[in-house]
Amino acid sequence: MELLLLSNGKANEFPGLLGWARDRVQSLLARKQVKRILLIPYAVIRSDWDARANELTESLGIETISIHHFDDPVAAVNQADAIFISGGNTWRLNQMLHENGLIVPIQRAVRERGVPYVGWSAGCNVAPPSIRTTNDMPVCNAAVLPALGLFPLQINPHYLDASISGHMGETRDERLAEFCAINPSEYVVALREASLLQITGENGSERLEYWSAREQDFKIFKHGQEPQAFMDAAPLAELTPFTVG
Amino acid sequence: MELLLLSNGKANEFPGLLGWARDRVQSLLARKQVKRILLIPYAVIRSDWDARANELTESLGIETISIHHFDDPVAAVNQADAIFISGGNTWRLNQMLHENGLIVPIQRAVRERGVPYVGWSAGCNVAPPSIRTTNDMPVCNAAVLPALGLFPLQINPHYLDASISGHMGETRDERLAEFCAINPSEYVVALREASLLQITGENGSERLEYWSAREQDFKIFKHGQEPQAFMDAAPLAELTPFTVG
Repeated sequence: MELLLLSNGKANEFPGLLGWARDRVQSLLARKQVKRILLIPYAVIRSDWDARANELTESLGIETISIHHFDDPVAAVNQADAIFISGGNTWRLNQMLHENGLIVPIQRAVRERGVPYVGWSAGCNVAPPSIRTTNDMPVCNAAVLPALGLFPLQINPHYLDASISGHMGETRDERLAEFCAINPSEYVVALREASLLQITGENGSERLEYWSAREQDFKIFKHGQEPQAFMDAAPLAELTPFTVG
Repeated sequence: MELLLLSNGKANEFPGLLGWARDRVQSLLARKQVKRILLIPYAVIRSDWDARANELTESLGIETISIHHFDDPVAAVNQADAIFISGGNTWRLNQMLHENGLIVPIQRAVRERGVPYVGWSAGCNVAPPSIRTTNDMPVCNAAVLPALGLFPLQINPHYLDASISGHMGETRDERLAEFCAINPSEYVVALREASLLQITGENGSERLEYWSAREQDFKIFKHGQEPQAFMDAAPLAELTPFTVG
């Protein structure tokens, strides 16, 4: 399985979409001999899907086509060299993945055929078992929570422990503590901007790596425990089927 | 109908729960001769429900009892002098309102018997037709979106147009614009901290008022329009059955 789960798509000091992780993305695409990227831009509500595909092509130097150009989106996934799922609104994205019948085709492409999956922001939110740790507003009347389950723990992307002065709503830490109180058996991996998890290797012997372009930590949240910060994926090895190293 | 829909429960410069709106809350309770407040604290996940009730009693000087002390929560609503719904996690609150069979009893209490409804933060989020404009994390596996529908427009509480430096997730304005793009016929009323909407009067001739303890504006979001800011409720009169004045 080849997963790149990125907190976000853009970071100011690294120009271009996925610019902060460009080397890692390009290296994955080269290793898997990817000729063309299939982009699933369903999370993008307010701008053009082709524009997003063009941004990727420009940033990565590889042809990218948006799934909406295919008459049959399932066939598009079945033939894809690589599946990229962009940021935007997680609720809309997950709803459309389900409504277009793409959940099982993506799972099979990634798990059985080793097709690389690169997801950032909303595209990272749909890789865990559910979207219960999204930060996004539930804009859709049809709320679907179960997601792809490619990664076995919940992830909270765009993680930050700052808060805006005077804002009386919950901080992110409080929101994640609420999640853990309601779901005491589950763990949440909180990824800061410009950080990622990468899973690579043959089925049953995948390795897991954590990397941050800004050399920042990630956190693990669990009910009844203080959130803990880490600089490498070692503590995740115990919580997933993946090895580290 | 007597509704007080408050963006939030606490504001730094006004001590006590609902301290920033205390005069208005006390005046409503006195006018309706409320002897005891029924508190529905289901949104509170990580602290004690009785502690929240005690906070209200201390701040308002009126007896408050949490609904969990009643064997039959429906009977508790049916006998309530006033219904207060506190902040916390909107998803958990809405799920428990539905699971405990309280949606119709609260609607009837408020609409038919004129029982005052005071809701802040999550308790404000459940007063519109749905919780699609909550800021909260969807921590529950059972996601229920339809809410009480006491107020006919969506409300976004804790509204703010600031954002945290370096955060690459959507701003609140972007999230609300996404909501409007997906729901182009709907309006969202964005309430800043320490501001409220009050509906008062006999059925069919209710008046609507906007008030901010900090003398700040509220905004209305609608697809295809720039968000507009207002200092009084007049523009809401056209969008609701309520008069202003």
